[in-house]
Amino acid sequence: MSFSFRLVTEPRALGPRAGVITTPHGTIETPVFMPVGTQATVKAMSPVELEEVGAQIILANTYHLYLRPGHELIARAGGLHRFMSWNRPILTDSGGFQVYSLGDIREITEDGVRFRSHIDGSYHVFTPERVIEIENALGADIAMCFDECVAYPSDRSYVERSVRRTTRWAKRCKAAHGRKDQALFGIVQGGVYPDLRKQSALDLAELDFPGYGIGGLSVGEPKSVMYDVLEETVSLLPVDKPRYLMGVGSVDAILEGISRGIDMFDCVLATRIARHGSVMTSTGRIIVRDARFAEDFGPLDPECDCYVCRNFTRAYIRHLLKAGEILGYRLTTYHNLYYLIKLVRGARDAILSNRFFEYKQEILMRTAKRSDS
Amino acid sequence: MSFSFRLVTEPRALGPRAGVITTPHGTIETPVFMPVGTQATVKAMSPVELEEVGAQIILANTYHLYLRPGHELIARAGGLHRFMSWNRPILTDSGGFQVYSLGDIREITEDGVRFRSHIDGSYHVFTPERVIEIENALGADIAMCFDECVAYPSDRSYVERSVRRTTRWAKRCKAAHGRKDQALFGIVQGGVYPDLRKQSALDLAELDFPGYGIGGLSVGEPKSVMYDVLEETVSLLPVDKPRYLMGVGSVDAILEGISRGIDMFDCVLATRIARHGSVMTSTGRIIVRDARFAEDFGPLDPECDCYVCRNFTRAYIRHLLKAGEILGYRLTTYHNLYYLIKLVRGARDAILSNRFFEYKQEILMRTAKRSDS
Repeated sequence: MSFSFRLVTEPRALGPRAGVITTPHGTIETPVFMPVGTQATVKAMSPVELEEVGAQIILANTYHLYLRPGHELIARAGGLHRFMSWNRPILTDSGGFQVYSLGDIREITEDGVRFRSHIDGSYHVFTPERVIEIENALGADIAMCFDECVAYPSDRSYVERSVRRTTRWAKRCKAAHGRKDQALFGIVQGGVYPDLRKQSALDLAELDFPGYGIGGLSVGEPKSVMYDVLEETVSLLPVDKPRYLMGVGSVDAILEGISRGIDMFDCVLATRIARHGSVMTSTGRIIVRDARFAEDFGPLDPECDCYVCRNFTRAYIRHLLKAGEILGYRLTTYHNLYYLIKLVRGARDAILSNRFFEYKQEILMRTAKRSDS
Repeated sequence: MSFSFRLVTEPRALGPRAGVITTPHGTIETPVFMPVGTQATVKAMSPVELEEVGAQIILANTYHLYLRPGHELIARAGGLHRFMSWNRPILTDSGGFQVYSLGDIREITEDGVRFRSHIDGSYHVFTPERVIEIENALGADIAMCFDECVAYPSDRSYVERSVRRTTRWAKRCKAAHGRKDQALFGIVQGGVYPDLRKQSALDLAELDFPGYGIGGLSVGEPKSVMYDVLEETVSLLPVDKPRYLMGVGSVDAILEGISRGIDMFDCVLATRIARHGSVMTSTGRIIVRDARFAEDFGPLDPECDCYVCRNFTRAYIRHLLKAGEILGYRLTTYHNLYYLIKLVRGARDAILSNRFFEYKQEILMRTAKRSDS
């Protein structure tokens, strides 16, 4: 089955909505949170556990997989799904964000980006055509256009030139993209400049992509700025196509995104903080490594019904983390993903029963005290 | 239910045998391999996965748990089973081997051992009474007496004094041991000296323990020496009590142990080599990290039906290990434990159908080429 999207709520330019994405590897109910499997594995999780926590789709990183083990190897393995034994949908990013993160060790031209591998320092070039070739080889259900993510803050003049180039690159990506069983999403850029965001959104909408990423947010700008930019941007995107807010994964930002009509989210936050002992709960984040949990024989989150909360105590998980035991990282990761996926699933249910804003307010109120960014 | 052991094969002084151990947390069919959960977790495994790979009983280390998180904390958590959410039997060692491993930072007297923590350098004292107090607090189904494990090689005169002290300590352990729902095993020592082993076995047998560990082997002596000592020792132990060869876990040594009437084995080998990318297979060990497996899209072991071998390739697992991904350590650990537990289970089946020596010869022949100690 090829790619499609349908809304199950009334089509509106803005505001929370629920939908269903269909892909060759099954359907995705939106809004959806996508765990990040950078190197063809969501850190510390097995595919079976990803299903248990309710992951409908995961993300993988083109940049990382291109460098190691190499996209040709993955193609010879039968594609990314078979390589990592994950039979549900996958989305690959384009490497634009990773290349941006490399900072000094990359050089951007009209043709593309020359960069050095963070693994061995070797030189590589990503052009729009090359990235599409790599994403085609990986074979995800959804591929992203190669874009330039600009830092915050950036000069308006730079962002203006960059966003135009990103549109030209999007055209080249579309022209190079051949796989019928893979949907190619455009990526809206434009920094924090509303008019540039508007231009980017309109230009990309004209290219008629089956879905749209919103990139370059959550890169250091104040949250209020992000929400304003988001609102401007979303209202200019086609209402009947999925909208994906890239790299955003804190509880409050996800809820604010859903409020503004975002359908898809991804972020390493939940899994990364988990490995540092930070746990998302229904009353906000706790640092389970803290000494005050040494003899706390309750679950990570008393309101959670996941495998971890049904079987293990804060005291035990703290012990594992202090001792550097792999199971500690596994348990906090499992719980955080379960929590976040359930939160977004709950948002969908709330949208469908017309009580999303109550749902959002209640969660924000309960988690606010201890929750950061 | 309290502790008991019954043989299901004819009672003989030597030779392979099958039995059933009953404990408060269920039964154990012997011969059995016990995965090691040093710090109240079998590294990289969850309790559910331990059940999946067929673990009937696991081991935990008194020394490690005493230092972190502390036995009193575990007692307050409701004991080790509850603390780690493992409802099947547990055996705790006595710390004798760990204290021996500390080398220069411990001092042995008649009363006990003064040692420094490997974590923070703080001073501690283990006496037989103290160790039993700790093991009682942990609440395993089987506890081991506090013993002295001597290095190889050691002077006969030193081993002679040491083995007598270990017997005196065993008496003190027995006197101090109060928990009715916990069986206390004695530990035979005596280095590689047959007459000292004999003396130790006879002295301990006189104390009438419900089971016997054989310690101080596999510490550097040639394997042929170990097998000879083992044969001498086993023949002097009560035929109706379980015999546990401590710290032995290679395929060949397990099969040789079973040949000589050993019922229980434990070792970190299978899990430790797994984390270094070494995998046990039906045709011997392979280093799956090796470049030659980069594009090997077959399972770790073509004859294995475990979750890992049914779902993942050598190429994928190699990629995970090269990238330092936790899932890599998880998959090799899971497979190695499945392999080794199944091997010992197969030995039991073979004993029951009177074809153990054929079973052993076939495995040794097939795994010999690539298998080391």
